Amino acid sequence: MKISARNALEGTVENVEIGAVMASVKINIENPGVITAVITKESVEKLGIKKGDNVSAIIKSTEVMVGKD
Amino acid sequence: MKISARNALEGTVENVEIGAVMASVKINIENPGVITAVITKESVEKLGIKKGDNVSAIIKSTEVMVGKD
Amino acid sequence: MKISARNALEGTVENVEIGAVMASVKINIENPGVITAVITKESVEKLGIKKGDNVSAIIKSTEVMVGKD
Amino acid sequence: MKISARNALEGTVENVEIGAVMASVKINIENPGVITAVITKESVEKLGIKKGDNVSAIIKSTEVMVGKD
Amino acid sequence: MKISARNALEGTVENVEIGAVMASVKINIENPGVITAVITKESVEKLGIKKGDNVSAIIKSTEVMVGKD
Amino acid sequence: MKISARNALEGTVENVEIGAVMASVKINIENPGVITAVITKESVEKLGIKKGDNVSAIIKSTEVMVGKD
Repeated sequence: MKISARNALEGTVENVEIGAVMASVKINIENPGVITAVITKESVEKLGIKKGDNVSAIIKSTEVMVGKD
Repeated sequence: MKISARNALEGTVENVEIGAVMASVKINIENPGVITAVITKESVEKLGIKKGDNVSAIIKSTEVMVGKD
Repeated sequence: MKISARNALEGTVENVEIGAVMASVKINIENPGVITAVITKESVEKLGIKKGDNVSAIIKSTEVMVGKD
Repeated sequence: MKISARNALEGTVENVEIGAVMASVKINIENPGVITAVITKESVEKLGIKKGDNVSAIIKSTEVMVGKD
Repeated sequence: MKISARNALEGTVENVEIGAVMASVKINIENPGVITAVITKESVEKLGIKKGDNVSAIIKSTEVMVGKD
Repeated sequence: MKISARNALEGTVENVEIGAVMASVKINIENPGVITAVITKESVEKLGIKKGDNVSAIIKSTEVMVGKD
């Protein structure tokens, strides 16, 4: 399935931290650094996300802001 | 000012496309490619965002999804 | 690719309305009615979204609110 | 009060799982299945959301993505 | 209907700017200033939003970031 | 750094509640009341957010809905 979200950054899962409902997944995308994704614990379990996995950080364009010095 | 959004990817504005209300800003972050940000036309004007600017793509962690093959 | 977004509602594209930057896609998911997705014009073009297509409305759980009478 | 969010899917609360800060609410909307909403624990308490409640899953159109095979 | 979104700021519509798909609504909430809401043109029409209306700016808590100097 | 998010409401941190992954920050913006921000625990720690801090509640315009009676 193709998805309308315009942004997909490939990387490797560096760390997964699981709470009661939510989980934080650190994805190392090398050059610009590490992306943090906060998703449900359920998603982490259903997709079997664990350290070392090759994954993509997917972001809808309307969620991206622009910062300028 | 420091902002709670965990993700800031530095890059260069590659293209700005402006509609009546919204604008699409393409930010080249080199290695993983191009990030698309959809922000208001007003923000583009207030920050003076134009091709060649050094900017950051800023994303709140709760907006990042994880895709896995 | 599997995606962490927990909600995917299958339906048929009923209408696509395109602006300068954004586009509105009406997805008929039958029983509860019609879902409106506002995505970039670019996504509509890249995925070739048109009336009659079988698509899914995909929503990250953190974006869903609950209303109660 | 009417709200600008275009998408409201009526259903029944199937399950509520509560963490320290966030809560996951499963809403059965019958035909297309179950919607997961991640909201604050505070909202669950203030609205008194519990299994069996008739509620609506409310989603702003800009948060809906489109997936296509 | 009560909604799980924790933040509702009452104000007066100061300006409505309409594009092909999206619309920008400026809501004057007096003390801290003006809130900009970008919603669909369809919502503006369905709710009949116009200058001078008493409205609320409604925001899900997971969408609020914190900035600190 | 200037950020494209159009909405920044200045206030004082009234309360911080920390879970395993997420944290809830109550920001008193006086006139219209209290804003709730749900951010990562990591952000609370990195920015050192605590009761009494002067902070801003920052919100992207596409995340603001409009309610009307």
